[in-house]
Amino acid sequence: MTSIDSLRSHGGRTSSTVRIAVAGCGNVGGALLDLLEDYGPAISRRTGVKFEVVSVLVRDLSRPRSTRVARERLTDSLSSFLDTPADVVVETVGGTCIASEIAHASLVRGRQLVTANKALLRVQGPALDALAREHRKLGASLEFEAAVGGGVPIVRLLRDSLGGQGLKTIRGVLNGTTNYILSRIEEGASFEQALIAAQKAGFAEADPSRDLAGLDAADKIAVLAWLGFGTDPSVLNVKVNGIGSRIEDEVRTAKAHNRVVRLVATATIISDAVYASVGPRALPADDPLSRVRNEENLIQLTSESAGTVSVSGRGAGGMATASAVLSDVLRSIRE
Amino acid sequence: MTSIDSLRSHGGRTSSTVRIAVAGCGNVGGALLDLLEDYGPAISRRTGVKFEVVSVLVRDLSRPRSTRVARERLTDSLSSFLDTPADVVVETVGGTCIASEIAHASLVRGRQLVTANKALLRVQGPALDALAREHRKLGASLEFEAAVGGGVPIVRLLRDSLGGQGLKTIRGVLNGTTNYILSRIEEGASFEQALIAAQKAGFAEADPSRDLAGLDAADKIAVLAWLGFGTDPSVLNVKVNGIGSRIEDEVRTAKAHNRVVRLVATATIISDAVYASVGPRALPADDPLSRVRNEENLIQLTSESAGTVSVSGRGAGGMATASAVLSDVLRSIRE
Repeated sequence: MTSIDSLRSHGGRTSSTVRIAVAGCGNVGGALLDLLEDYGPAISRRTGVKFEVVSVLVRDLSRPRSTRVARERLTDSLSSFLDTPADVVVETVGGTCIASEIAHASLVRGRQLVTANKALLRVQGPALDALAREHRKLGASLEFEAAVGGGVPIVRLLRDSLGGQGLKTIRGVLNGTTNYILSRIEEGASFEQALIAAQKAGFAEADPSRDLAGLDAADKIAVLAWLGFGTDPSVLNVKVNGIGSRIEDEVRTAKAHNRVVRLVATATIISDAVYASVGPRALPADDPLSRVRNEENLIQLTSESAGTVSVSGRGAGGMATASAVLSDVLRSIRE
Repeated sequence: MTSIDSLRSHGGRTSSTVRIAVAGCGNVGGALLDLLEDYGPAISRRTGVKFEVVSVLVRDLSRPRSTRVARERLTDSLSSFLDTPADVVVETVGGTCIASEIAHASLVRGRQLVTANKALLRVQGPALDALAREHRKLGASLEFEAAVGGGVPIVRLLRDSLGGQGLKTIRGVLNGTTNYILSRIEEGASFEQALIAAQKAGFAEADPSRDLAGLDAADKIAVLAWLGFGTDPSVLNVKVNGIGSRIEDEVRTAKAHNRVVRLVATATIISDAVYASVGPRALPADDPLSRVRNEENLIQLTSESAGTVSVSGRGAGGMATASAVLSDVLRSIRE
């Protein structure tokens, strides 16, 4: 049994077509469409499940696109996107406004919602989860592996197994952009040079302010605290500090003391209260987080019974994130 | 939603009792019974599911035991163990003879089988998986997170998500005993001293020959190749080299060249053929496997789309392994 063959054995649809609607055709949405093209036939051979992209919601129809999806599947109309019959809706538009509308409309229609949107989950995660359960019999479900850690399967680990058995602490490097910047500064770049390099490499957004301020990492640690400890992420108070041009000095001073600066996110439970923070920390060189380079993410889960489990991989970049989205799509059809 | 609360939302039994039969009461079986005592009440409060240990199969009834299970639940009779009504059967006896009998008898009776037995899975994994599917309607299932990587959730990752999307290579340190020994030799111990230290620390078996010969790691990489590539592990040819007293010289020569010796297991797929090996390798100091210390395990999964995902944690020791078994039990009742 491979994980794909196991689709067959878990009561998933067989010899059928799964209709996928993709909201957003940027970095992640575009990469997902490429992955579906590249791996769709192999998945179909092994599972009998065929993917059909039925609709792609875009902001600007006139923009040239490298994706191989037929142009008649593209739409800039939200209502036409939502009205197109689909089994799985993948939300990659980001933000909390249109994304929220897509999420609610999809779940009440009994669709399987796959999202990479940590900001949305931070404010509405438990509500969307409740909505998915409420419409479960219609076929609704909520998956969001790509929301935290890009290609690192941390959401799955927390949802499936590691929560609830004496989990004490979640700690990690959760933001690829700031880590890429810190890696460049270590090598001698200025903050501004490093930021430009991150944008050129495709990790930093045109507006990187949420990454730099630590707000992206704060959303992510809040979502992980929800999964691991059951805390409502929208009311969890995360103490947040970001990085700016003054970080150059901190990185150099740390280096002189054989330390490494990382933007560290933590959530700890002490007597049923959860404490969460995000901020730059000067770590000893042998701390596993010190070795996290470039856009990599690493998350440590420490529990009484299992000790510390670490998981790491590419935390940013369209392809890694799209790969996590595809694993959610596969999971949706399996369940 | 926590992973535990999610039990409720996935159609698992609620407000009911799950009857658990545990075969074997050594390192892993004993630690599992302790975990069930310690976390059972909390799990029950959060999920409505109560665990009841209905039978524990032991080799020697007269041996004194630290476990808190009532003595009348202990039995040394395999048939009485198998005849005791149970929902979940946890097999921790090891080997392939009695373990196989327990596995087959449990699955055909529609029980959820949880096993940590890589040797059994290597020779019968696909057959047991088929048997579990065949008796699925009776309630049968097969879970084996603890079979590879101890507390490292590598089985789940491969089964659930990472197989099938262009996975190319599985590579890792999979045997805690040999890694503990190599760590001690690095610090100056002789092979014999290191082996005794591993046994004292509770990692090496009384008969550590399978660990030292690389056969334990070979079973594990074969099981991972099955999950990741779909290869039948019983026919997969794994090229195996182990470690012996001559490894002292290799470790020291490597150290002089700023290299670190690790017992590395790999499986790679090239044009549909899977190549697997286990053996000591002198790795550059900055290879992630070089940093794996003591009983730790680390596994790297490299795929085209997601790059390399690494997962690490305690690979040996009763409590880490029992924690993985408990996560399987929780998964069984969830599905």
